[in-house]
Amino acid sequence: MRDKPVIYHIPVCPFSQRVEILLDLKGLRSAVEFQVVDITKPREAWLLEKTRGTTALPVLEDEQGRILKESLVLMSYIEERFPATPVARQDPYERAVERLFITREGPFGNAGYGMVMNRDRAKTEEKRKALLDQYAWLDDMLRFHNPEGTFLFDRFGWAETVYTPLLMRFWFLDHYEGFALPDDPAFARVAKWKAACLSHPAAQQVRFDQIVKLYYDYAVGAGNGALPAGRTVSSFTFTPDWRDRPMPPTDKYDRIATDAELGLV
Amino acid sequence: MRDKPVIYHIPVCPFSQRVEILLDLKGLRSAVEFQVVDITKPREAWLLEKTRGTTALPVLEDEQGRILKESLVLMSYIEERFPATPVARQDPYERAVERLFITREGPFGNAGYGMVMNRDRAKTEEKRKALLDQYAWLDDMLRFHNPEGTFLFDRFGWAETVYTPLLMRFWFLDHYEGFALPDDPAFARVAKWKAACLSHPAAQQVRFDQIVKLYYDYAVGAGNGALPAGRTVSSFTFTPDWRDRPMPPTDKYDRIATDAELGLV
Repeated sequence: MRDKPVIYHIPVCPFSQRVEILLDLKGLRSAVEFQVVDITKPREAWLLEKTRGTTALPVLEDEQGRILKESLVLMSYIEERFPATPVARQDPYERAVERLFITREGPFGNAGYGMVMNRDRAKTEEKRKALLDQYAWLDDMLRFHNPEGTFLFDRFGWAETVYTPLLMRFWFLDHYEGFALPDDPAFARVAKWKAACLSHPAAQQVRFDQIVKLYYDYAVGAGNGALPAGRTVSSFTFTPDWRDRPMPPTDKYDRIATDAELGLV
Repeated sequence: MRDKPVIYHIPVCPFSQRVEILLDLKGLRSAVEFQVVDITKPREAWLLEKTRGTTALPVLEDEQGRILKESLVLMSYIEERFPATPVARQDPYERAVERLFITREGPFGNAGYGMVMNRDRAKTEEKRKALLDQYAWLDDMLRFHNPEGTFLFDRFGWAETVYTPLLMRFWFLDHYEGFALPDDPAFARVAKWKAACLSHPAAQQVRFDQIVKLYYDYAVGAGNGALPAGRTVSSFTFTPDWRDRPMPPTDKYDRIATDAELGLV
């Protein structure tokens, strides 16, 4: 029997980062062992056997070899396994507001990924509008529940742990789509929240240039480690290291950059 | 200040029934006051003010006038407000399995509602297949986590509270689509679970003929209290009472029954 749970993960994956931030906030980073899976290769047989065929990560294996999936499920599991340092609100009403706030994490993520993966200029504005609608909903919730504050409650908590990894992935929108929240009072509350989330000490597992480089393939429409046309190495490859590669070009609507241009060979 | 929370609800709504079942399992039916909203009329201004414009129900108002929405959020709120009689699993691993199991409640509901609302015969088989895919996933989970048992764990619990109201709404599929789970070992585990859910004493808030009569309009493609073509009274009307109406015809692909034929006038 293992002496601690293991999480099989892709280091740059936002869903894995949620669990890392949670552990950091709880002061329990070493309570779980992280084992890296290479997204650019087919899943290995031993892992598929554990997951009973599903390929989505992260996956948690507990000390008894039992498997759990889905990042929000893993977050709650960690919170309940290690209850001494709660991150979720303890008051039932506040906890409910927190849960309501995270009901949009799926649509929010889809809006951002849908925007970065789009290569049809005719749809750019529609994709941008869909993402802004999500930000507007978050702005309204933050303004209603904590008008003068920074986070949903008095500190970076459960809600921020859920959204921050997505906010960080959306750096790819800054680079590839020239996206920025409008400088408009209607988005002022969510802009304040977003800035505080991005700079929080517990959420520094990834960097702007890392996300932009690794997610290049998403920007040209290829998700989950798939190879764009004309390329032989995924932008998610572990070698060469992303630190040694140049920033990718932003002309995603016009062409797909080569392996060489991306510093992949 | 009120002396207990109020839930504004549509009595036949599956999302409201979830909370009713939970309260029943906790032995707390009178801990919450239920106030009926007529789905066939526009929402009243005082309710829209409370919800800040959203029309979805149920909505909970706590003793201090604070508003909560979304049935799963309300369920967790009730569970945490009244922790003495827990319905959710208490072991973190089991609680996680329960949470994983209910991640499909949205797609499951959508598959059933998508099937009943379809009026294009060319799409009937595709809709049926989509619903069976959902049942197959549930079967696999039940078989893996409790192969010899009836429920996901040792009793009707949180997972069953979430799904049973949907299983009961899907009575409209039995009537209007002639749907039944295939008599096939691949669905035997979920069929056993479904039968036990439908007959559980804590879940008898609605009846087969009630669902079939009230949801007639869904069967001809009109959701949320909207009126089908040629009709002046919604099948969700409170008067005449559903008990006094005949069972609706099943020829939903061919025509829309009249008010008179449905016993609505």
